[in-house]
Amino acid sequence: MEKRELLYEGKAKRVYRTDDPESLIVSYKDDATAFNGLKKGRIAGKGAVNNQMSNRLMRYLEENGVPTHFIAELNERETLVKRVSVIPLEVIVRNIAAGSFSKRYGVEEGVVLDCPTFEFSYKNDALGDPLLNTSHALALNLAAPEELTVIRTLALRVNELLRTFWAGCGITLVDFKLEFGRLRNGSIVLADEISPDTCRLWDSGTQEKLDKDRFRQDLGRVEEAYAEVMRRMTEHDA
Amino acid sequence: MEKRELLYEGKAKRVYRTDDPESLIVSYKDDATAFNGLKKGRIAGKGAVNNQMSNRLMRYLEENGVPTHFIAELNERETLVKRVSVIPLEVIVRNIAAGSFSKRYGVEEGVVLDCPTFEFSYKNDALGDPLLNTSHALALNLAAPEELTVIRTLALRVNELLRTFWAGCGITLVDFKLEFGRLRNGSIVLADEISPDTCRLWDSGTQEKLDKDRFRQDLGRVEEAYAEVMRRMTEHDA
Repeated sequence: MEKRELLYEGKAKRVYRTDDPESLIVSYKDDATAFNGLKKGRIAGKGAVNNQMSNRLMRYLEENGVPTHFIAELNERETLVKRVSVIPLEVIVRNIAAGSFSKRYGVEEGVVLDCPTFEFSYKNDALGDPLLNTSHALALNLAAPEELTVIRTLALRVNELLRTFWAGCGITLVDFKLEFGRLRNGSIVLADEISPDTCRLWDSGTQEKLDKDRFRQDLGRVEEAYAEVMRRMTEHDA
Repeated sequence: MEKRELLYEGKAKRVYRTDDPESLIVSYKDDATAFNGLKKGRIAGKGAVNNQMSNRLMRYLEENGVPTHFIAELNERETLVKRVSVIPLEVIVRNIAAGSFSKRYGVEEGVVLDCPTFEFSYKNDALGDPLLNTSHALALNLAAPEELTVIRTLALRVNELLRTFWAGCGITLVDFKLEFGRLRNGSIVLADEISPDTCRLWDSGTQEKLDKDRFRQDLGRVEEAYAEVMRRMTEHDA
């Protein structure tokens, strides 16, 4: 597979064309941003950790019936993925109150929700990725009704699978963000990444934060937290 | 029915106890507020218009199978209603993009939506009445799942009925806000009011605004707009 020109550069990843029109190469950067790009920084080693962690988890999800864009890890920072048309929704599942949920609804961080919540944000930086519901997504023609149903089902399944996986690593899955895309044949697959950039992960014992909130909130030991999650996952596999 | 002490004073209404524990008297004020209370004013005659208009519409909805809190109009500004425990949700149905929908999602005011959208806001002034979806409402224990289903069904039915009614008055129903409550036996009824304070109403020909946006946006002739809607409804009935 030959790497060709840069197609797109995002906040945390670069995407390159390949000689196969249906495959792309994703290259993970160490750059970190938060608050819709207002806070910028760098987390040394993050790109390599996120790439390998996300691939490990995508493989696990595939083995458990969740279709993903993953094809093959190329090197420490680069992965071959299926080309998708991205559905402009951020899909957020929450098990415990934190972040924008806590702020928006006045619920203290750490409150365990009776059942997982599921929400969409409209992927639109200029509008600040606003929350929307299913009827808004349909009115804005962001996806078809049956696509939204598939996405919801997959996201809740991913939640169950990731909770179980990370519980085995002594990590509590607080919440996370997924993105989905359509393959050329129209079928929906999980895209983007699964990492401490996109999940809130707390140590199950101490409740210590092991995710991007350490960067957002200037808690220090950011690199160490990402490396610690990776270390526990590697140990779990051993 | 004897009017007793003031139970609650809101932005646009006062609520009094009566000698019947299951009935309350609502008294409509001319006070107007907007932007979560940041803008304050007075619209002469609004209380009387909203009281009579809301009662006329509640009767129409009742005749068409929508249960409401309405019992009887007592005088120009006062109405006897069933006591309910208010469900802390604002239920918003939209047919045409306007207001917070336009701002939040970058859709020009006036764009006709392919199908009506339905949304909940959490009735909480301190939090600014934030948007929420069904899973949030359940996680926050604001209502039971079957109550949310009933509310959704009733709200969409109210939309159809009000659109039809106002079309007969040369008025386009752009969007509106409803509130629901539980009677002592647990059944859900439509509560609050239906008026140019809670609905966006445009002249079907000229698209002129005939609702509280005239106050919000300092468009002038606010009293006249409320009176004009009332006049057309009275004419419709004649």
